[in-house]
Amino acid sequence: MKKIKIGIVGYGNVGKGAAIAVRANPDMELVAIFTRRNPESIVPPNNSVAVLPIDDAQSMVGKIDVMLLCGGSAKDLPEQGPYFASMFNTVDSYDTHAKIPEYLEKINEAAKKTIAIISTGWDPGLFSMMRVLFESTIPEGNNYTFWGKGFSQGHSDAIRQISGVKYAAQYSIPIDSAIDAIRRGERPVLTPRQKIKRECFVVAEHDADLPKIENVIKSMPHYFADYDTTVDFIDTDEFIKNHSQMPHGGMVMHSGNTGEGIDTHKQFMEFSLKLDSNPEFTGSIIAMYARAAYRMAQEGSYGAKTVFDVPLSYVSIKDRAVLIKELL
Amino acid sequence: MKKIKIGIVGYGNVGKGAAIAVRANPDMELVAIFTRRNPESIVPPNNSVAVLPIDDAQSMVGKIDVMLLCGGSAKDLPEQGPYFASMFNTVDSYDTHAKIPEYLEKINEAAKKTIAIISTGWDPGLFSMMRVLFESTIPEGNNYTFWGKGFSQGHSDAIRQISGVKYAAQYSIPIDSAIDAIRRGERPVLTPRQKIKRECFVVAEHDADLPKIENVIKSMPHYFADYDTTVDFIDTDEFIKNHSQMPHGGMVMHSGNTGEGIDTHKQFMEFSLKLDSNPEFTGSIIAMYARAAYRMAQEGSYGAKTVFDVPLSYVSIKDRAVLIKELL
Repeated sequence: MKKIKIGIVGYGNVGKGAAIAVRANPDMELVAIFTRRNPESIVPPNNSVAVLPIDDAQSMVGKIDVMLLCGGSAKDLPEQGPYFASMFNTVDSYDTHAKIPEYLEKINEAAKKTIAIISTGWDPGLFSMMRVLFESTIPEGNNYTFWGKGFSQGHSDAIRQISGVKYAAQYSIPIDSAIDAIRRGERPVLTPRQKIKRECFVVAEHDADLPKIENVIKSMPHYFADYDTTVDFIDTDEFIKNHSQMPHGGMVMHSGNTGEGIDTHKQFMEFSLKLDSNPEFTGSIIAMYARAAYRMAQEGSYGAKTVFDVPLSYVSIKDRAVLIKELL
Repeated sequence: MKKIKIGIVGYGNVGKGAAIAVRANPDMELVAIFTRRNPESIVPPNNSVAVLPIDDAQSMVGKIDVMLLCGGSAKDLPEQGPYFASMFNTVDSYDTHAKIPEYLEKINEAAKKTIAIISTGWDPGLFSMMRVLFESTIPEGNNYTFWGKGFSQGHSDAIRQISGVKYAAQYSIPIDSAIDAIRRGERPVLTPRQKIKRECFVVAEHDADLPKIENVIKSMPHYFADYDTTVDFIDTDEFIKNHSQMPHGGMVMHSGNTGEGIDTHKQFMEFSLKLDSNPEFTGSIIAMYARAAYRMAQEGSYGAKTVFDVPLSYVSIKDRAVLIKELL
């Protein structure tokens, strides 16, 4: 079997997760890692994997089938996305929801001879697929997305920006009473506060003003002000022991109805995740879509694609006939 | 908006569910119902819907965009599937898992100028999609499918064949301890008996030999012998009051791992359904795939397709750009 040759751009948590995923897929092999850092500083998963500066990417055209773009959405991908898509098939997990249409447009312009599957991962990604599937199956109903219980990188970063904060971990926790109501087939209208609460664990500098830090967190617009938030100050040892992992999870639920009047029936769908490692899960999804990008490119497709454009037969290592026989 | 013109073949529980679903989708309209029964005996959902004998189908070529084949898998679909696919785009919910490849082959031969999406519904169908998605995301793991708690048509029919039985309802009930173990991230090997138990409610003829009926049920190969089965004899009133609905549900779970050795992480995915009306839910999925069949046919595709071949953008009433903006 000819293996799909993979490159990884950006070797942070998600990039490492993607490397682990490539190893778990026997039809793929990792050829190179591209980094903005000093390549010497990166230990590749094995000696056959080259570590190269991002600017050397052009020299690898023809030697890599699909590039997995594992950089951040704020600064890395808006630049790296179009750059790599102009030369390689790419997959990314661009996750700034509000800017996806604009990002897609730019990638689509760059990917004139390549496939670029954008915004994979679990949200956007698997959760997005469920939202489409659910509302299309039962048009009369409501979708609900909950994130957590889990570690939120963005909210933790926001706390770390506060003067006097050394380390911070923020967990989003779905509120059981809301979930229970939806699972009973109700269709509540929920405010952010009714859906999720936020728990913060903070290590402060030794001379910090703790009540002030707590107040700054709780009143931070968008991030915390609209939620019930708790703040616990802990020491560095406890932080390292209990808050260094990145578990996450969440669910998409759809509470709907078929029929009318006294013949109305409740129809409930739910998709849920419980992840010990968020970056390894995200990396796994990116790797899975590399297979789809490779196959679609082989068929002559090009341009920016999303998870909505890819049939499931393209993501599986198994032949369509085997899927139909074994899994349909 | 030009509406998609829908025909329904077979107006039993699923056909009625499909008619309700067509009404819930504003881009579709039901044009005709085709039946093997006397058309006079069928009350259509409204007066603009024609009720016609199946043999008149040919006269409707060009007047119907997609035919929803709602007959049974045992006898109706093997005959009706190829017959209708030779003239119309079709969607069905053929569910004899073991014979799907053979059925697909026959449909594919018939659908030379049409699209035929086979084996939609929830299993095969949505559950199949999850099995592919799950094992492709996390290759190191196990898929588990549970049906229930729910009413099983096939098992209830099997009981009704027994001499002395008047009415019967059989419920499949997933076993909590198995589900809990998988949700904890374990990957147990489970026998049928460890996954599901079966509860039977039977109305017997007044002179029937009850212990004998119970014994025949419990020792029936495939259907009951491999499961812990309970049999309750009840009277007709209670049967009509408590066992005339068709609730169902079930779940596909995937318990997997990423990483290796001490860095192994549990990654858990679950898709679940809780349905007040199984036939209305199945009908809803068939209707959703009618939209996909219509669009794929417009693009010039033809032949037998499955849920693995259809991108999600094809099942939604919304434009791709709207999906990307609102749901990705």
